[in-house]
Amino acid sequence: MLRKVLSSRKVILGSQSPRRQNLLKGLDLDFEVKTQNTDESWPGHLSEAGIPEHISLMKSLVFGELDPLTILITADTIVWSEGKPINKPKDTAEAIEMLSSLSGKTHYVYTGVTIRTSEGSNVFSDETAVEFRNFSRAEIEYYVANYSPLDKAGAYGVQDWIGYIGIERLDGCYYNVMGLPVRKVYEALISLTRQN
Amino acid sequence: MLRKVLSSRKVILGSQSPRRQNLLKGLDLDFEVKTQNTDESWPGHLSEAGIPEHISLMKSLVFGELDPLTILITADTIVWSEGKPINKPKDTAEAIEMLSSLSGKTHYVYTGVTIRTSEGSNVFSDETAVEFRNFSRAEIEYYVANYSPLDKAGAYGVQDWIGYIGIERLDGCYYNVMGLPVRKVYEALISLTRQN
Repeated sequence: MLRKVLSSRKVILGSQSPRRQNLLKGLDLDFEVKTQNTDESWPGHLSEAGIPEHISLMKSLVFGELDPLTILITADTIVWSEGKPINKPKDTAEAIEMLSSLSGKTHYVYTGVTIRTSEGSNVFSDETAVEFRNFSRAEIEYYVANYSPLDKAGAYGVQDWIGYIGIERLDGCYYNVMGLPVRKVYEALISLTRQN
Repeated sequence: MLRKVLSSRKVILGSQSPRRQNLLKGLDLDFEVKTQNTDESWPGHLSEAGIPEHISLMKSLVFGELDPLTILITADTIVWSEGKPINKPKDTAEAIEMLSSLSGKTHYVYTGVTIRTSEGSNVFSDETAVEFRNFSRAEIEYYVANYSPLDKAGAYGVQDWIGYIGIERLDGCYYNVMGLPVRKVYEALISLTRQN
């Protein structure tokens, strides 16, 4: 569907995340990956969904002006637990600490997305609630030793072992937790082609 | 974790489904796949979760007596919509009909699991609610033409394109919709090793 309706456009995914690349592929869409370094800080008055929306826009704007055929997709994911944002851990000790703090509780995953063309930007986000069961120390250490938590918000990948053994309940979009709310991206791309 | 605690046991997955095989692999567990044909009918008084629980037990019992080291895992998945069970479509016309009937509504996916040893069977199930947005006829036809809905309960794979573009909301276990409630399977396997 999208391959046909977007055939005259050039879609760029501005993300190094292999998970986001695979999710976008799942929409049956041709695109290129290009990345630029972005400052991922945010103004202090932002919270929850506002933070990844802001960062996704920053990740988009560093690409500068776009030619009329280009559609640029950027995204950012943040985990929010007990009133505080949880980003990527800086080392395995912090990964263990983060997972211990998420154990036995519900946290919220927000992915902000910016879809930008030469005409302007569509910025949106999605929220998913994830309830973890209580993890044993051995389970957390097993995960951190055998998987790669360091490049992931909240120190876990929902598609990894810990997502298999640990989720008591998920409410919302599963793919949003992986890093891209694909249904909303699909709808935004469809509506883009309807406007033009 | 499981590889270590189950090292003296032989785990068999009694399912041809490549999705179930991948999900069980995600638990970091060694196992063999063996399948036997089973009558997948059920007594008329069963409904919802009872049906796949019953069928998962039937799929297990056809293997006959188990040796004391073996752990046999079998499962069955059913979709329930508007008070009726929806199984696998017999042809593409029925797949289109099933997806049209699920469009714009919430349906419920039940996977029943039997974990059986020479000591007895643990039979359980999980329920996940899936809300589909309204599909256009073109989207349904695109999916049926480009994917393989015929071997799937409800005529769709949640991990396919239609799951990417179509889920308004998912409540429960995502992997249960794929065919195996992996967290519950993990906990059942852990508790099995504690009993022995």
